[in-house]
Amino acid sequence: MKQSNMLIPTLREMPSDAQVISHALMVRAGYVRQVSAGIYAYLPLANRTMQKFKAIMREEFAKIGAVEMEAPALLTADLWRESGRYDTYGADLYRLKNRDQSDFILGPTHEETLTMLVRDSVKSYKQLPLNLYQIQAKYRDEKRPRNGLLRTREFIMKDGYSFHQDYESLDVTYEDYRKAYEAIFTRAGLDFKAIIGDGGAMGGKDSQEFMAITPDRTDLDHWLVLDKSIASLEDIPAEVLENIKQELAAWMVSGEDTVAYSSESAYAANLEMATSAYQQKTKVVSQEPLEKVATPDCQTIDDVKSFLGVPEEQTIKTLLFMADGQPVVALLVGNDQVNDVKLKNYLAADFLEPASPEQALEVFGANFGSLGPVGLAEDIRIIADRKVQDCHNAVVGANQDGYHLTGANAGRDFTAEYVDIREVREGEPSPDGKGVLKFARGIEIGHIFKLGTRYSASMGANILDENGRSQPIIMGCYGIGVSRILSAVIEQHARLFVSKTPKGDYKYAWGINFPKELAPYDVHLITVNVKDDQAQALTQTIEDQLQGAGYDVLTDDRNERVGSKFSDSDLIGLPIRVTVGKKASEGIVEVKIKTTGDSIEVHQDNLLETLEILTKEN
Amino acid sequence: MKQSNMLIPTLREMPSDAQVISHALMVRAGYVRQVSAGIYAYLPLANRTMQKFKAIMREEFAKIGAVEMEAPALLTADLWRESGRYDTYGADLYRLKNRDQSDFILGPTHEETLTMLVRDSVKSYKQLPLNLYQIQAKYRDEKRPRNGLLRTREFIMKDGYSFHQDYESLDVTYEDYRKAYEAIFTRAGLDFKAIIGDGGAMGGKDSQEFMAITPDRTDLDHWLVLDKSIASLEDIPAEVLENIKQELAAWMVSGEDTVAYSSESAYAANLEMATSAYQQKTKVVSQEPLEKVATPDCQTIDDVKSFLGVPEEQTIKTLLFMADGQPVVALLVGNDQVNDVKLKNYLAADFLEPASPEQALEVFGANFGSLGPVGLAEDIRIIADRKVQDCHNAVVGANQDGYHLTGANAGRDFTAEYVDIREVREGEPSPDGKGVLKFARGIEIGHIFKLGTRYSASMGANILDENGRSQPIIMGCYGIGVSRILSAVIEQHARLFVSKTPKGDYKYAWGINFPKELAPYDVHLITVNVKDDQAQALTQTIEDQLQGAGYDVLTDDRNERVGSKFSDSDLIGLPIRVTVGKKASEGIVEVKIKTTGDSIEVHQDNLLETLEILTKEN
Repeated sequence: MKQSNMLIPTLREMPSDAQVISHALMVRAGYVRQVSAGIYAYLPLANRTMQKFKAIMREEFAKIGAVEMEAPALLTADLWRESGRYDTYGADLYRLKNRDQSDFILGPTHEETLTMLVRDSVKSYKQLPLNLYQIQAKYRDEKRPRNGLLRTREFIMKDGYSFHQDYESLDVTYEDYRKAYEAIFTRAGLDFKAIIGDGGAMGGKDSQEFMAITPDRTDLDHWLVLDKSIASLEDIPAEVLENIKQELAAWMVSGEDTVAYSSESAYAANLEMATSAYQQKTKVVSQEPLEKVATPDCQTIDDVKSFLGVPEEQTIKTLLFMADGQPVVALLVGNDQVNDVKLKNYLAADFLEPASPEQALEVFGANFGSLGPVGLAEDIRIIADRKVQDCHNAVVGANQDGYHLTGANAGRDFTAEYVDIREVREGEPSPDGKGVLKFARGIEIGHIFKLGTRYSASMGANILDENGRSQPIIMGCYGIGVSRILSAVIEQHARLFVSKTPKGDYKYAWGINFPKELAPYDVHLITVNVKDDQAQALTQTIEDQLQGAGYDVLTDDRNERVGSKFSDSDLIGLPIRVTVGKKASEGIVEVKIKTTGDSIEVHQDNLLETLEILTKEN
Repeated sequence: MKQSNMLIPTLREMPSDAQVISHALMVRAGYVRQVSAGIYAYLPLANRTMQKFKAIMREEFAKIGAVEMEAPALLTADLWRESGRYDTYGADLYRLKNRDQSDFILGPTHEETLTMLVRDSVKSYKQLPLNLYQIQAKYRDEKRPRNGLLRTREFIMKDGYSFHQDYESLDVTYEDYRKAYEAIFTRAGLDFKAIIGDGGAMGGKDSQEFMAITPDRTDLDHWLVLDKSIASLEDIPAEVLENIKQELAAWMVSGEDTVAYSSESAYAANLEMATSAYQQKTKVVSQEPLEKVATPDCQTIDDVKSFLGVPEEQTIKTLLFMADGQPVVALLVGNDQVNDVKLKNYLAADFLEPASPEQALEVFGANFGSLGPVGLAEDIRIIADRKVQDCHNAVVGANQDGYHLTGANAGRDFTAEYVDIREVREGEPSPDGKGVLKFARGIEIGHIFKLGTRYSASMGANILDENGRSQPIIMGCYGIGVSRILSAVIEQHARLFVSKTPKGDYKYAWGINFPKELAPYDVHLITVNVKDDQAQALTQTIEDQLQGAGYDVLTDDRNERVGSKFSDSDLIGLPIRVTVGKKASEGIVEVKIKTTGDSIEVHQDNLLETLEILTKEN
């Protein structure tokens, strides 16, 4: 493909509104353009990367018997009324009316549509299992779309749905998908972890998330690509290195999820679901009497701790939540943070939100800062984190503004359900007892769920079993954020190219080192001087030669300055660069392998075998 | 692919709501399902046909340097306000608001989006020409969606847009597209005509439509596929043939357009644009005086003609239109029909509609049935068809209810602009003088336009030319109805399979003979008895053999009655059927080539070469 035919609007500067590097680079390198907030056009380069990713998916899904189809995006609200989601989905759902004033939505996912299609066609267990998927634009009216393709209002998703007679069959397909996802993300050149995820929002029972790990901003070995003229990091002057570190630190760490993983085992979970090892301490403590003490101006645990001179592990924090409209009290030790997802899942609540000051006043008779579990009405549920069991003679709010109680003891002074509701912290022991928890930021690129009968039951999708008895179909669902993959791959493969000028000045510039499988083209073929007929002829010969050997080639045939061609090339980030320069008359070109930085002059006759050797080494 | 893994919900009966055969068959054969009025899910078979069609398009577009991208479907109304179409597009435009109450639309086409993207990136003539396309869901809130995929509210479209410095460059790309479209539709196995189209609605100057021709309902050679047991049509008893003819006639002729084409030349045009040869007659006639005559109860030309005893060619019909709100009178000879599109294009009007009785009364002082061109206010434009020039001493309405004028002559009694505004009729001479016009019904599958500066001028998409002067970009646009292709191909390849039972009874059943290039699979491999281990093993061997040789194979591994497997197979319509039946133990299978009806028994070792020979003969 001739670059003069392509729309690749590269920019000289980083776009000022971008906070994460993938967003900045995908705009600057001319992959995408925003059309309106959170709504993007995928320009030709992005389209090619997505096509390559789609091809990988189609190959891997064919292996597990998944069949592609395509449902509409514009859906009658009646479908969503059947499942109940029309009323519960909230403001993220795009709603519209057609010319007859009937209600429609733009599909954010397609559980209802696929359930309906299968319900209307499948009547017998003999027709199951079925495993259907589609690759399609999806719509969510995000409150705050941001970070390029990471959170958008229109996005491309692969969504798959499987239909089974029993859970054993679902387990097989779920495991097929887990392996297929691992194969897909591995082939796509992504650094990812399969982690325990939260399926609560989808009504699921079992789920796994696939997270692309965001590189650590301080890992210079990861980020920097040194020019041949620079032997190692040590060569770079301290003040230049400091600037580089600042440049790296200036970019927001992308990925809205934190992955907690074991330093020594395969354990990995979304922070929302992560647990750490806990064993109740067996300690005999004599219970002190309850005593009310004035704690003026003490609003936080830290305030109380220092005012009363007690250790943090002897203080209990009391929170109030509204779970599906009912007040629920949560207790945690000291400054432990509550994990909403764990609490919500334990309560099996559809909605959980922190209570308002007014609601707190009603339940406790006091304001925030002095809440406590002692003396509450009997019908108020109290959920305490497991660690509260180890907290004796504790300090709690007195339910009177400006006062706390000391000597509070569970069992005697209040009753609670003990559950793991705290957010784990880095360094705590892994729940499987192997190693300690480490944290990383991740971008959710895939998610597989066991849905069970959530949709089939409400929508009446039943089959007759071997004995002629009707039963709801068992379902699974499987998503991949296709447009988000583009963000993830650029986030992981963005690099700072550091070079030294002949004068000895150090320069650095951002670019992309696309992995081979997702690069829009394999080779960037650059003619330095398009007005040189010999160079032009050699370029055409090499383009034909490379394409004949199966390489996808982008030929920069533009009449532009060579500096601008090379900087565009660094931005676009194809794996191999072939430059037709001064030695064109001798048939000699320069080959550069982007990932290794290898650069070599080679005669046109030896180009193909050289490329084969150089790329095999990767 | 194992058929047990596929969702192919075939039906025993034709769906009762289908009026055209393609709609009926695509539902009955399990290709599609309607989700809501005019909104369809493409089930796995339809998805595969569309994927194959997309692959053909991508190959042909790569040859002309067209580059694929993907714009969003959810568009900010601001873009459409820039072009002015937000206010003028009418009720077909889906409009919605996002959570901030900003106006959005669902894109029915993407002129604005692409114009904006190119405007914001391209500043110099050196960056042109550009030729971009996408394949994507489009939205039109059709008043009356109907006929399966022929008129839907969500549909898949390939839309391309080209950008040029001058019209010469546009002409080159337009011609490239014309050839690419011909190559695509030819490869897709479609019977089509490239015709002169109306580009008025798109603001275009030059346009060509590609119409898939609907087969004539009376052409038995086209529709019937006779079983080996029936030598020719003559063998079929008259009463059976009569039933077959009625079955064919019962299906509505699909295609909303009429194509007028020359019996002897390449001339072909949409009826909306078709002209016939016309030369003004040179005839000296003495002008009679105007005379008002009572014509009680005469409302139509036929009434007047028989009441007054004058030939039809001596009567003039007077019509009133409102063109962009202004009254315009149209005159035609006798019962000639006005062609709104020709009239609208001549007037360069944005909107043209027939006037109401009230508007007619205001302009003529009379009601419909007595309107005439004599004595109208001077500022009323009168557009007469060219043939009115040959109408002397004519009868026209007297502008007084119940009266006509005789002896009316243009020039003396009224003044008109003479233009071709009549609808041509079958049998009239072709405008190029070669042959006569014939009519056929067609389905619009493609359309190419020269847009000019319609969008670039209103949206400020300018470039600097060689001399640094700013000029609007010249544009072309190019559409293909991808989902509609599925309707067109089934419309043309639906067949009635006629067979004779051993008892001598004649039966006929609908099915599809998919052309090779668009068939979802190449081969339907059917195991008659899946409980026979030898048959099962042979089936697997043959599936592997065929797939290894590059055939796409659908293997019917279902435990169903053989009759139901064969009738499903006839409906689905794959080009080749391989049946593993009674002779499985000998390694012998039956091969049937659907288009020729050839059926042959062959040993598994000779299967591949037999298929090669049999399909080469096609």
